Amino acid sequence: MTLEEPRRGFERSEFESRLARAQQLMAGQSLDALLLMSEPQVRYFTGFLTQFWQSPTRPWFVWVPATGKPIAIIPEIGATLMRRTWLDDIRTWPAPRPADDGLSLLTELLGPIQDRKGSVGILKGHETQLRMPLADFERLQASLPAIDFTDATALLRKLTLVKSEAEIAKIAHICTIASKTFSQSAGVFHTGQPLTEVFRDFRIACLQNGADEVPYLVGGAGPGGYADIISPPSSHPLAAGDILVLDTGSVFDGYFCDFDRNFAITSADDASRRAYATLYEATEAGLAAARPGNTCRGLYQAMRSVIAKQDSSAGEVGRYGHGLGMQLTEWPSNAAFDDTVLEAGMVITLEPSMNYANGRIMVHEENIVIRDGAPQLLSSRAAQELPVI
Amino acid sequence: MTLEEPRRGFERSEFESRLARAQQLMAGQSLDALLLMSEPQVRYFTGFLTQFWQSPTRPWFVWVPATGKPIAIIPEIGATLMRRTWLDDIRTWPAPRPADDGLSLLTELLGPIQDRKGSVGILKGHETQLRMPLADFERLQASLPAIDFTDATALLRKLTLVKSEAEIAKIAHICTIASKTFSQSAGVFHTGQPLTEVFRDFRIACLQNGADEVPYLVGGAGPGGYADIISPPSSHPLAAGDILVLDTGSVFDGYFCDFDRNFAITSADDASRRAYATLYEATEAGLAAARPGNTCRGLYQAMRSVIAKQDSSAGEVGRYGHGLGMQLTEWPSNAAFDDTVLEAGMVITLEPSMNYANGRIMVHEENIVIRDGAPQLLSSRAAQELPVI
Repeated sequence: MTLEEPRRGFERSEFESRLARAQQLMAGQSLDALLLMSEPQVRYFTGFLTQFWQSPTRPWFVWVPATGKPIAIIPEIGATLMRRTWLDDIRTWPAPRPADDGLSLLTELLGPIQDRKGSVGILKGHETQLRMPLADFERLQASLPAIDFTDATALLRKLTLVKSEAEIAKIAHICTIASKTFSQSAGVFHTGQPLTEVFRDFRIACLQNGADEVPYLVGGAGPGGYADIISPPSSHPLAAGDILVLDTGSVFDGYFCDFDRNFAITSADDASRRAYATLYEATEAGLAAARPGNTCRGLYQAMRSVIAKQDSSAGEVGRYGHGLGMQLTEWPSNAAFDDTVLEAGMVITLEPSMNYANGRIMVHEENIVIRDGAPQLLSSRAAQELPVI
Repeated sequence: MTLEEPRRGFERSEFESRLARAQQLMAGQSLDALLLMSEPQVRYFTGFLTQFWQSPTRPWFVWVPATGKPIAIIPEIGATLMRRTWLDDIRTWPAPRPADDGLSLLTELLGPIQDRKGSVGILKGHETQLRMPLADFERLQASLPAIDFTDATALLRKLTLVKSEAEIAKIAHICTIASKTFSQSAGVFHTGQPLTEVFRDFRIACLQNGADEVPYLVGGAGPGGYADIISPPSSHPLAAGDILVLDTGSVFDGYFCDFDRNFAITSADDASRRAYATLYEATEAGLAAARPGNTCRGLYQAMRSVIAKQDSSAGEVGRYGHGLGMQLTEWPSNAAFDDTVLEAGMVITLEPSMNYANGRIMVHEENIVIRDGAPQLLSSRAAQELPVI
C-alpha cells in the first residue's frame, strides 16, 4: 500500500456542525426530535462505525433532540464502541430481547413529547427503510397517540447533500484506490480466466491497494457486449472479443466510491467502440453541465441529448447517476424527475448508459465533486477510447 | 484455491419445494399471498443473487400467491438477471420513480384480495425490517383498507429454520474456507502489524482461499484481552501479550459462515488462558446438548452453567449463538427467552462469551448442523488451549 491515507474518523467539530445544522432545520419545522435507526444516519450523528449492521437481529436508535447532544439507545453489545464517540448519553438494553427491544427506553424519551402533543421526525420517504420491526413501530405509535411521527426525509437530504472537505477526502481516497486498481487491469485479467476469478482478483487488488472492504462488485462480460450490470460473476471464461465491465463500490473509513470501467478483451468490435465513444461524449457533456445552479434534471438532459443520437430507448438503469457518500447510492438522481439544484460540495456520479446492438448495454461512470466552476473528478477519467487488454 | 466448490445456485426442485412448503403453511393461516421485499426472502423464493441490494434506492418485491408460482415485481434494472431464475412472471417499472415505485403494480396484484377482504402476509416481527419506504407502505394500506396485512414472521421462520442439504453444503464450504484461513494465521500475523493490516491480510487470505466476499470482519486486540468485538480495526500494532480475536462472516454463493478465533501474541496471560479454557468447556457442553428435541434455551443453559462458575454477569452479547444461513445471524437465539425446539438440519452457531478481569471479554464461536444424534461441526473445532502465535 503506497497511498497516504486521510485521517480516520472526524474531528469533534464535524459532529457539532452536523448537529447544529440539523437542529436549525428541525427548528424550522417545529420538530421536537429526530428518531433515527439506519446505519448512515446513526453514523452521521455519532461516528459509530461497525460492520455489525450485517446482523439484522438488533435495532439501534439515535435520538436527536431540539437542543442538546444526541442520545444513543442501543444494544449493550455496542456500548463499548459507542462510548468512544463524542456522545455522553448512551442507554443500553441486553438485546436481543424480543419482548422489549428498546421500546421502553424509547417510550421514556418520547413521554414528554407525548405530553405536549409534539412532533418527532423519522425517515419515511424515497430511498429509506424502517430499520426496526414494523410491529414494534406500530406498538410505539399506538402507545403514544398524541405524537405526530412526521417524515424527516427532506430534512435529512438537505443536511447530507453537501459533503464536508473531510468527507470528500475519504471519498477521494477510495476513488484513487479504485482508479489505481482499474489501471492495473491489463496485468490482472487474461483470456481463459473465469469471471469468478476476475472478480476475486479485482477484490484482492483493491484491498492490496488500500481499500478497507469491497462490499459492491458487479459486472459482466460477453462476446461483443454484456447484457446486465448487476450480476455476480458467472464461470464464463474471458475470451477474445469479450467486452468486460466491472463496477465497484469499495470503501475507505465508511465512505464509498462507485464507478465502473469497460475493457475489450484482445480486440473490440465496432458497435462496442461506437457505444463507448458515445458514452464518453455523454460524460463530457455531463462534466460540462455539472455547475452550481444547474439541476440534476439538467445534468440528465445534457447526457441524454448525446445518447439519444444512437439510442432512443430510455435505458434500463433508470437514471444517469446519483449522490454518493456513506451509501453506495444516495439522493439525488440525475433523472428527469429530479430538480435538485447542484451546489458546491455535492459528491455525485455521472453514469450514462445505453442499449446497443441486440440486447447489449453499456454503462460508464465517473465520480465528481461539484465545485465553484468546473467539477473536480475523483475517479481518474476513463480512457477516451475503449481500452483493449 | 484448492478446495472443490459445491455447485452454485440450486436445482429447480429446491425452489419448488420451498414454494410448496410455504403454500402449505399459508393455507394453514388462510393467507391469500405473501408480499416479501427483503434480500433473503426475495432470494429464497427466486434465487435472485446480486450485491445490488447495497443501493437503498429501489424497492424489490416478490409476491407468493396461495397457488401458482411467485411473481417478481422489480426495477427494470434487475429484469435480465431475474429472467435467469425459475420465475415466469416478472413485472418491472423504470425505477427509481419516486411517485410510483412499484405501487401501481402492487395495487394491481392486491386488487382481487381487496375485493374479497383477504389477508396478505408481510414481515413485521423481530429481526425483520420494512424494506420499502414507510410512507409508500402507508399509502398502500390506505388505498386497500379491506386487506389485512398480517405478520408472517413466524411462518417464514418455520419455513427457513431447517436448511436443505444443498444449503448446508454452501455453508460448510465457506466454513471450511474460513477455518483454513484461521489455520494460516501464524504465518499471516506478527508483532508490530497494525490491526488495519491484520484485518486486510485476513480478508485477502479468505478471498485467496475461495470466499466470494468477506462482508463481516470484526475483532480487536489488546494487552491481556480485548474489550469489544464489533469494532473496525484500529491502528494498534500487535504486541507481545496481546489477545487477538477475529470474527468473520464470509460468504460463498450467498451463504454465510460466522465464527471467530482467539490468539495470544507471543505469550498468553493466565486470566486469558483460564477464560479460554472455560469457553472451550462451555462449547463442549453446547455440543453435547445440541440434540434434536432440546431447545435453544436448553443450549443456552448448558453453556451458561459452565460460564457461571467464572463469570456471574449475563454477558454483553445477549445470547450464546443464533441461526445462520443466508444472513449472518438468523432466528433462533440461544437465549433464555427462546424455546425453539432443535431439529435435524438446523444450522446454528454456538457462541459462549464471558467477562473476565477488568472490562475484558472473550467470545468463542463454532458453526454446527443439528443432526440425528451428535451435531456436525462445520467450522474446524478451535484449539483446546489458547493458541500462541
